Order: sequence, then structure tokens, then C-alpha cells
Amino acid sequence: MSDVQLTPDGRLRHFLHISGLGPKRLTEILDTAESLRNAAEMRVHKLPLLRGKTVLNLFFEPSTRTRTSFELAAERLSADVVNLNVSASSTVKGESLLDTLHTLEAMHCDLFVIRHQWSGAARFFAEHVGPGVSVLNGGDGAHAHPTQAMLDTFTIRRHRPDLQNLRVVIVGDVMHSRVARSEIVALRTLGVGELRICAPPTLIPEQLDQLGVLIDTDFDRAIHGADVVIMLRLQRERMQGPYLPSSTEYFRRYGLTAERLATAKPGCLVMHPGPMNRGIEIESSVADGLQSVILEQVKNGVAIRMAIMAIVMGANQGLGGSEG
Amino acid sequence: MSDVQLTPDGRLRHFLHISGLGPKRLTEILDTAESLRNAAEMRVHKLPLLRGKTVLNLFFEPSTRTRTSFELAAERLSADVVNLNVSASSTVKGESLLDTLHTLEAMHCDLFVIRHQWSGAARFFAEHVGPGVSVLNGGDGAHAHPTQAMLDTFTIRRHRPDLQNLRVVIVGDVMHSRVARSEIVALRTLGVGELRICAPPTLIPEQLDQLGVLIDTDFDRAIHGADVVIMLRLQRERMQGPYLPSSTEYFRRYGLTAERLATAKPGCLVMHPGPMNRGIEIESSVADGLQSVILEQVKNGVAIRMAIMAIVMGANQGLGGSEG
Amino acid sequence: MSDVQLTPDGRLRHFLHISGLGPKRLTEILDTAESLRNAAEMRVHKLPLLRGKTVLNLFFEPSTRTRTSFELAAERLSADVVNLNVSASSTVKGESLLDTLHTLEAMHCDLFVIRHQWSGAARFFAEHVGPGVSVLNGGDGAHAHPTQAMLDTFTIRRHRPDLQNLRVVIVGDVMHSRVARSEIVALRTLGVGELRICAPPTLIPEQLDQLGVLIDTDFDRAIHGADVVIMLRLQRERMQGPYLPSSTEYFRRYGLTAERLATAKPGCLVMHPGPMNRGIEIESSVADGLQSVILEQVKNGVAIRMAIMAIVMGANQGLGGSEG
Repeated sequence: MSDVQLTPDGRLRHFLHISGLGPKRLTEILDTAESLRNAAEMRVHKLPLLRGKTVLNLFFEPSTRTRTSFELAAERLSADVVNLNVSASSTVKGESLLDTLHTLEAMHCDLFVIRHQWSGAARFFAEHVGPGVSVLNGGDGAHAHPTQAMLDTFTIRRHRPDLQNLRVVIVGDVMHSRVARSEIVALRTLGVGELRICAPPTLIPEQLDQLGVLIDTDFDRAIHGADVVIMLRLQRERMQGPYLPSSTEYFRRYGLTAERLATAKPGCLVMHPGPMNRGIEIESSVADGLQSVILEQVKNGVAIRMAIMAIVMGANQGLGGSEG
Repeated sequence: MSDVQLTPDGRLRHFLHISGLGPKRLTEILDTAESLRNAAEMRVHKLPLLRGKTVLNLFFEPSTRTRTSFELAAERLSADVVNLNVSASSTVKGESLLDTLHTLEAMHCDLFVIRHQWSGAARFFAEHVGPGVSVLNGGDGAHAHPTQAMLDTFTIRRHRPDLQNLRVVIVGDVMHSRVARSEIVALRTLGVGELRICAPPTLIPEQLDQLGVLIDTDFDRAIHGADVVIMLRLQRERMQGPYLPSSTEYFRRYGLTAERLATAKPGCLVMHPGPMNRGIEIESSVADGLQSVILEQVKNGVAIRMAIMAIVMGANQGLGGSEG
Repeated sequence: MSDVQLTPDGRLRHFLHISGLGPKRLTEILDTAESLRNAAEMRVHKLPLLRGKTVLNLFFEPSTRTRTSFELAAERLSADVVNLNVSASSTVKGESLLDTLHTLEAMHCDLFVIRHQWSGAARFFAEHVGPGVSVLNGGDGAHAHPTQAMLDTFTIRRHRPDLQNLRVVIVGDVMHSRVARSEIVALRTLGVGELRICAPPTLIPEQLDQLGVLIDTDFDRAIHGADVVIMLRLQRERMQGPYLPSSTEYFRRYGLTAERLATAKPGCLVMHPGPMNRGIEIESSVADGLQSVILEQVKNGVAIRMAIMAIVMGANQGLGGSEG
């Protein structure tokens, strides 16, 4: 298997997308995150797993929460962290992306976290870095956001370990969502019982059915009996234009209200990758309600990113998910 | 007393404003800062008081000096520091302030330093963070800038410990100054002998006299016999418009010149929170003169912020101001 | 000798320009960098040489690579680092450069790295900081970029230690290049055999010949028999206007092509300070070819900056270049 994510001997080297990783590897990540989350709970000193390593956060798209989550994950593993927020329009004095990469790599950066508006940018980086350097995808275009998918999966597993019996619904603008793409693959890989995608007809990508999911354009029908509902953020730019009539209309048909949630299975988990548009894709009382695990997702995000950083750097010995 | 700043058992948890803190607590802060300043003088290794803690500098207003001062204070206590400069116009993709707060909090941040253009923003944060998390006000609207007030008070006390015998004059745009508001309360709480406020009639807020200060619109009269003169920065936007005739005229009437300073008490301290408008509120020779303690204020700012961080995190055991 | 860079007893305190330093001192820097590069190669823990020190990166011009290089150098010496990117147009709320400097200094910063669009800015800072504080020039106007010159010299020496027998050619917009200015002095000081400058007639500064270099406007002639070719970046703003006909024409006459390189000495080193304009001053196949040491320059940059930081802070005891 020539997955660019793996070393020739099958170790996870980069983390670019979920596809091709298989259930055993995803489970290792989740187990490692579980150990790290426990360490974080105890709030003692930092873990020395990445001491002497340099992590470079290279963000070509603005981001607060994802960048901060990666930065904290790296700091808590005792790495040195450098943040570079590059406006894509003026990429480093007109230098090519590849020259930027090689320049930063030459300064002995061990781990790149990259967010870019181009699908495939993280993979491009991974294909060009030298030996010993790893690349993590912090979101690339509409392609993938694999750490978000893992933290969501992690959050589900902590509350509902019997994944194969679950009914999960992902709701919203699936077409433009890298989060949804990565989640579908992660949840399918781990054998979630039923995965249903619910979106307006104009926001359903072609060939979605080939991913082994059920598609439903009627939220009232789709949520019925669900164990987990994952709401997607509606990008502001979609609220006008050809895709959608209006945000009010969207909320009426696809917003998660208390009333709708009552038709899901009792205790159904409410999830959202953030940032939320309250009153557009989700009602405030639901976002803040007892069934919401939205802030827990954020918390778990740090643990998942710590786990992936430790694994790709080969520094996860002695942690829960490690075999070495 | 239901001061949001205090824990139910009366410990200082947040630092939002000076009011309600009382002389004993302010003195504890000053004494702790004194210990930390001595440690800084020796310039040895960092203090481990906040090791493993995360400090988040959340600045909705641009700032160089205050942000750097808080950042250095946190680093010297061995905390991890994350800086977020958020332009208020585009608050994190339209996310609400509260969602931003809870998101960052979920990542296990222990201490928020917030600067915001809204009066009350820091208090709002403090009312909504979970247990174990503290909020420091780095300046909120025209309301308060309590760490600035403490560092000014600290600077005065180091030079003139007999506060009850001092005559202090605060000069300038009191109406729009969060620094002045906080200073008045701090100096009054610690029993400064006489506190005089001097400003153009258009820049004196209503009900100022209820704060137990003397008001004088004539600087030549107000400075007479003073032990300390605190000059306020004149915001550029006040220099035109209805409040003031011109910056030249302002300097003529309210600028601190060597000539005016000569009418104060010999050795009268000259203070300014910075950044200074030289030639507008203060003459350069005075700003750089022997009686100026302006740079010492900056230096003391780091010690004061270290002290407050250590106290709210309960990490001040063994330091000067601590009772254990 | 009243060089502002030196302490009264002749120790290197600031690093502002190469002139006046002499071959012994430059060699000490190169030797120290050699030790530090070896430490970096082993990629063990960080060196504790600047533990407890604060390095302030004060960049008035945008920069990615230089700022990151200084930041990483400081972190690897265990210093605390604060980055301040100041847009020159709005210098800290209208505060003077000197007030900014003194303010930051008062917060106990030990080492300033300054990049500024004014020639002489770093020297200005050095003349005004207090005892115990050092200033490094990260590039000032068209004046000097001495750390770049040292890393280039370091790279040449590692490949061709017999400097006195070398023929070095510097090619491009010498007139506007602070890199070229500093390189000429460094290479001359270390006794490079022959130093040739090649540029279009409009881009040769007056009095260049007084620096002891040969001048040639014909690149085909200048490169003949060279051991090292250093290509300069052509600033975009020069590509139009009175200096040059067009970028195509520039490439035709002054671009480094494989064909031209073949007329240099076999194994001639290809260098460029970056960021490169591929296809304008250098052909891609040459930039990425076997003779290119461009990425090694970047790598060496971190070691050189670590060396200079350690030396000016008096923390280089026990390293290769130190005399104790």
C-alpha cells in the first residue's frame, strides 16, 4: 500500500486524511488520546514527549480555535512552537509554497501543521518534506479535516462505546464541508451502525451514496431515533445566493431545535465542530443543553492532537494506544 | 459580600477592578510584587510558580506594551502563553464572545487576560468561566485598568512609603481614562493624603466629586506643593472636536513643563502610564528628567502582573505578601 | 577603537554590521556556529545557554524566514521569546521609536533583534539601550544584514575552507541590497581571494570600487572560473521603472542558468539568500541542482544566530569559538 501517510514499514508518519488508515490505527489514536486526556485531567506538569522538537503552525487561512488547539497540544508535549499566519494572497514575498516549505524545514522543524484553502495542500507538503519530518492536516480546502473527525469520533466513543449499534446523523452543508468528509470516513471505518447524511438537495455532493451512507433531505425524518446528531456550520457565504433561500428558511427546515431533538433517541448526543451560528443551524437552548457535548469536543481536540503528534513523532511509547 | 472577584471563602480569584478589594488585599498584592521584583533584579532562572498552567492573552484592542508585559509576566512564572489578537470587527467568524470564551476555556486555559473596548467585558468573562479559571482585566473600555493602577501605586509606595501624607495630582482626560478611574480607587483605598484631579472642564466626568477627590481645572494651582504628578495620555481623537481647542492650547494649559514642575514639592515624582505624547501632555525634558519614574512604572508592571497572576492562581505561597 | 558594537574591554556586545570586527572575531563566530550546528545535528535537548533571558524580536518590516530563524535560534538556547510585529506606519500609537525601545527594555529584555526599513535603526537602538542589553541587526534599510552575511560566509567555509584561494561572484541588484553590502565586508575581512561584483550598470552603487572588489557588468565574463556564485534577489519593485528593461531581459543577461554555471569552476557553489524569484534571477534546475547550497544556508542561519546570541550574552563558554 503506497499511502503517503505511512512509512515503508507501516508506521503513521503524516496525518492527512482518514482514508486508508483502517480501524486498528484509528483505535490506537483514540486510545492514546484517552491516556493523554487523563494526564490533562490531573493537570500536573507538562509531558516531555516532544522536548527538543519544533512544531510549526503554518496557517494560510485565519483560524483561532484550531490553531490554538494545535499550539496548546504541542506546548503540553513540551515542544517549541512557532506560529506563522500567512495571508495566502501575499505568500511570503511571492515565494512558491514549496520554497516556503523547504526553507522552514531547513531550520529543523520536525512537525508541520498546515491549514490551507487548497484541497491537497497538506498532502503536497507531505510528499515534499524530507526524512524525519511529519505533516498534519489542519484543514485543506473542502477536502479533509481529519483531526476534527478524530476528536468527534473520540467524543462519541467516550459516551457510546458500542459504535456498531449507533445511528449517527450529520446535518447541513455537506457539500462544502471538509469536516463532514473526514467524519464520514472515520465513522464508517470504525463500523458505526448507521450513518445518515441530511442536507438540502442543493448541498448534497454527487456520488455521496458511494461512501456507504444513507441520504435524506428531510431532517424530521432523518433525526428520528438517532443516537448522535452532528450539526455542521453553515458558512455565511452560503446563506445568500443559489444554494439556499434564506437563513430563516434554513433554520426552519434544518435547524436543530429542542422539538426536533425530542424525536431522537433519549439522551441523543448533540455535536457541532464550531464556531456555531446560533439560531441558524442550532437553537441556543439545544447548544447549551444537557445533551450537548460541544465543549467537550473542543476539550478532546487538544488530547487528540497531542496523541497524533506523539504518534507521528514516534514518541507515544508507554501511552495507552502504543504497542511499542 | 458578593464581589465577583472573590471566591466564597474570600480569596482573590479574578482581578477586574479595584473597588471592593480593601487596603489589606491591595497591600498583599504590593508586597508580593516587591518579592517578585527582587527575584527579577537578581535575574536568575525563572520562577516555577505557574508551571503547567496556560495563560491566554485575549486582546480585542491592539496593544504592544500591556500585552508584552502580561506575556513576560506569565513566561517568567513558567506558564505556557498563547496570544490571541482578535479584531473586534470580525470576532472569530461571527461567533459570540461567550462561545469564544467557553471554547478557549474548554482547552484548559487557566488564566485569561482580556482587553476589550467594552466596559464590563472582563467582568462578563469572569461571570461565565468555570471553576478554577481566573480572569484578569487588561483594560475594558473606559471602565478600569486595574493592573495599571496597581503598578502606579506600587511605584509611588517604593519612593514615598508614607502614602497618608502625600498630595497626588492626576492630570488630563479623566473622563475617557480607565487608568484614572482605577487609580483614584486604588489611591483612595490605600489612604493617600490628598488626591486632586485636574482636567479641562469638558473632560471632567459627572459625579467625580463623589469619589472623594478634589477637582481643579487650573493646573498651575493644582500642582502647587504636589508630591506626585500623574499625567494621562491625551488620546489623539480628543485633540480635535468639541472637547479641546487644539493640542498647542492643551499643552499651554495642561502640559507638564519644567517650569510647572518647579512649583511642586522638591523631588515630586513624575508619572505617565504611556505611551506618551511628548510636547502635548508632557515636555520631553520632564519625561526624561531626574524626577521621572515613567520607565520604572513599566518595569514594575511586570512584577505587579506576576504578583496578581500568582495570587489568583493560589501560587503565591512563600512570597512576601502571602499568608500561606 | 570606539566601535559601538564592542564593550570598553573589547567584547562583542551588539551585532550591527561587519565592518570593524576583524578576522579573529568573525572566525570566533564561525567556530561557535560550527559547535552549535553539531549540537543541532544530534537533535538532543535544548541548550540552556540563554535560560532566563528574554529575546525580543522587534520587526518593523514583514519577514517570515528571518524572524522565524531568530525565534528558533533563541528558543533552542532556552530563552524566552516575544515577537512584536510593528507596522511602521502606526508605530505603537504614535510613540517615538526611542520610547518604544526604552519601554520594552524596562520590562527586562536582554536581547533585541531589530529589523527596520531605516538604515541605521539597529545602531540607533544600540546607542540607546542600557548596560547589559544587546542589539542584533536583523536587516536595516539598504545598510546591512550582517547575520545573513555571516551565514553565507559560514556556508562557504564549510565547503571551501581555503578562502584565500576562492573566486566569489555576487550577482544582481547590489545597489539596493543590504545583503551584498554586508557580504562584501565579511568576505573581504576573511581574505577571500577574489571578490567580483556583477550587476547591470544602473544597479551598481557609486564608490563600490573602493571596497576592494572587481566590478563587471557582463555576467558571462564574471562567472568564468568562479568557485562560488551568490545570486541576489531582484526586488519586484525594481522590475519595472527606470532601472531595468524587463524581468525577461534581466534573466537573459543576469539569470543563473545551467549553461552559464557550466562555465564556472567545476563544483562551483550556488547560493541565494532567499526568497528566490525562480526564472528571474535563477533557473529552477540550478536552484534545486547538486551545486546549490541554498537550503543549507537557511539551516546554517539558525546556527549562526545562536552563536551570535550566545556570544553577545557572554554565554559561549565551552563552545568551539570561545576563549573562555
